[in-house]
Amino acid sequence: MLGRLNHVAIAVPDLAAASAIYRNTLGAKLTDPQILPEHGVTVVFIDVGNTKIELLEPLGADSPIAAFLAKNPSGGIHHVCYEVPDILAARDRLKEQGARILGDGEPKIGAHGKPVLFLHPKDFNGTLIELEQE
Amino acid sequence: MLGRLNHVAIAVPDLAAASAIYRNTLGAKLTDPQILPEHGVTVVFIDVGNTKIELLEPLGADSPIAAFLAKNPSGGIHHVCYEVPDILAARDRLKEQGARILGDGEPKIGAHGKPVLFLHPKDFNGTLIELEQE
Repeated sequence: MLGRLNHVAIAVPDLAAASAIYRNTLGAKLTDPQILPEHGVTVVFIDVGNTKIELLEPLGADSPIAAFLAKNPSGGIHHVCYEVPDILAARDRLKEQGARILGDGEPKIGAHGKPVLFLHPKDFNGTLIELEQE
Repeated sequence: MLGRLNHVAIAVPDLAAASAIYRNTLGAKLTDPQILPEHGVTVVFIDVGNTKIELLEPLGADSPIAAFLAKNPSGGIHHVCYEVPDILAARDRLKEQGARILGDGEPKIGAHGKPVLFLHPKDFNGTLIELEQE
């Protein structure tokens, strides 16, 4: 079921400062920031060849990464996203296995315009897993 | 400088239990556990097509992931590893930029038999970054 690693998301308190570190210190190529109000984040993507790194800065009062940054003020690795061939089949299989889907269990449209779901980190060794339709 | 994402490492308190979750619940293909006494971990690799996930269980009293698991008892994403074409050139560039290298600053041989270095997470938004020679 588990397909390619689509991205690793890193929450940061200051997207401009983090972008400068990746660009200047690590020599990475970054996209311009994308403001995603419906996801409560501003995002910069880093293409590392075989997958992507997403730098996430909170946007608005209800940002889904605000609690993570309150606990980890300097930032940290927030989640990993895997591609799956059929997100509804994946969801149903996971529910059958007893895993919990976050939210109402219905896929939402993610940052890449494709359906996504998040799985409960308590069911996966403290790792927040996003699934994205291929 | 920053090349492909070689792997994402996830620290887990119980490698057998975590392996069962990835194998049965997530339908992933796993290697057999590898005991790496010189790194203080037992490792299972998951090939997700474009990169690898490493599940790490502490081994011995001085495991480098013991403190992380004391803080995150159910586990969590521990580090990301990027490939670099020349690890000594990468190290020297990073030091020039003011970034701190963990340990004595000399590459050690990593789990894949290649030279590796770890960068100080305080210099990279709370993210522990491993660099591995391509």
